[in-house]
Amino acid sequence: MALSPLVEVGPARRPSAAEQARTIMAGTNVASLASLTGDGDPWASMVTFGLVGGVPVLCLSDLALHGRNLKGDQRGSLAVAVPVPQETDPSDSGRVTLAGRFEQPREDEAAAARAAYNGAVEGAEVFSAFADFTFWVMRIETVRWVGGFGRMASADPESYLAAEADPVSPHAAFAVTHLNEDHADALLLMARHLAGHTDATTATCLRGDRYGLDLDVSTPRGATNARVAFDQPLDAPDGLRAATVELTKRSRAIAESS
Amino acid sequence: MALSPLVEVGPARRPSAAEQARTIMAGTNVASLASLTGDGDPWASMVTFGLVGGVPVLCLSDLALHGRNLKGDQRGSLAVAVPVPQETDPSDSGRVTLAGRFEQPREDEAAAARAAYNGAVEGAEVFSAFADFTFWVMRIETVRWVGGFGRMASADPESYLAAEADPVSPHAAFAVTHLNEDHADALLLMARHLAGHTDATTATCLRGDRYGLDLDVSTPRGATNARVAFDQPLDAPDGLRAATVELTKRSRAIAESS
Repeated sequence: MALSPLVEVGPARRPSAAEQARTIMAGTNVASLASLTGDGDPWASMVTFGLVGGVPVLCLSDLALHGRNLKGDQRGSLAVAVPVPQETDPSDSGRVTLAGRFEQPREDEAAAARAAYNGAVEGAEVFSAFADFTFWVMRIETVRWVGGFGRMASADPESYLAAEADPVSPHAAFAVTHLNEDHADALLLMARHLAGHTDATTATCLRGDRYGLDLDVSTPRGATNARVAFDQPLDAPDGLRAATVELTKRSRAIAESS
Repeated sequence: MALSPLVEVGPARRPSAAEQARTIMAGTNVASLASLTGDGDPWASMVTFGLVGGVPVLCLSDLALHGRNLKGDQRGSLAVAVPVPQETDPSDSGRVTLAGRFEQPREDEAAAARAAYNGAVEGAEVFSAFADFTFWVMRIETVRWVGGFGRMASADPESYLAAEADPVSPHAAFAVTHLNEDHADALLLMARHLAGHTDATTATCLRGDRYGLDLDVSTPRGATNARVAFDQPLDAPDGLRAATVELTKRSRAIAESS
């Protein structure tokens, strides 16, 4: 999967596991909760959530089993997956597990928790006010990100809480398709001159994020993943076009000077 | 949500919780697994699965945390949701939780387990043969179905295992839309004369399954859900058209005789 470049290239910034996890959490309002029954058995259930910063907020009926579970034992874990089309291989798409403890919000955080949940979940303003519903905020102890085959890492809770969700990657699919369909020559230049695979024969873009592009590169030595980084991190998806033009120019300048 | 009919009507068959659960399980290959860490903490993770009858089969890396968890403690639970478009309210769509224990397949069930998993999951024939991957079959102890707001029930494992997945409901969305757009008059006849809400002013179809249709009915007394059952259970989605025509004829005959 990863061949060494043939010429030395500098490090190419990529999103940290903490950023990847924050991005996945920001992309949906549906999670699976693992809680513990009175017997200490695991129980998996679907929940909806809002976020205060990166902190998940749930609102569960005390009558539902998962609600009763958390009342009895506050340990819990959330699995969240990137929403993908049904034909996508789920094993090769992003997901994150958070584990820790759920607590009822402190007085100073109750309003923010309520607002985050009610803003994220349809109809929540009505049902979250029912007497049998309890708000829960997660005290995160473990963050585990899986990006797909061979792409995974853990993050410490502090890094996760301090990280920003990527403003670009959830919206990059169209640009990635466009690059592959209409700018294969530019991607090949990048693979050769920015990623250092000077013998590359084809290059396709796998995904884009605020820091750069992941490429799938063919060479006579075999196939490899490669990374090319933008000049500056992007703050919005509409910066992708100018950033890839800049990458192409930079590749071409190196090609012409070598 | 449920008003009494104004005239007496017979019971209208609907899918059992066991059938609903089997249908949801048959509709996807992605689940969330709740397992237990070495400390007995819950851990939520995404898994792919195949089915032997209704029995879920997993294939997990012993190096991954959830694989290590099951090696240490075989208790586990799976949450599975009906795949729905992103704009759908997830709280009002179907999901099921199974809980029980995972075991490595017995010799007499190993081939079927392997075939079910490999047939359901892309690329599984390759990775499931790796030395660090273990097959697991679930010994189901608890089945909990949630259909959406106010629609939920448990099933015993025997009923779940004996039930059939509904061949109609996963494919009924188009027919339901068509009924609502072009046959509102027929739905109103059904609501009045088959469901017994003789004062109904409008009726829309919420969903269809092999046994009949769920309707949302407006009356001067308020709104109510109602059920109308087909003459015979259907074995395939393409029976929906004839079955709804039959319902309409039956409603009209009652209307004309009263």
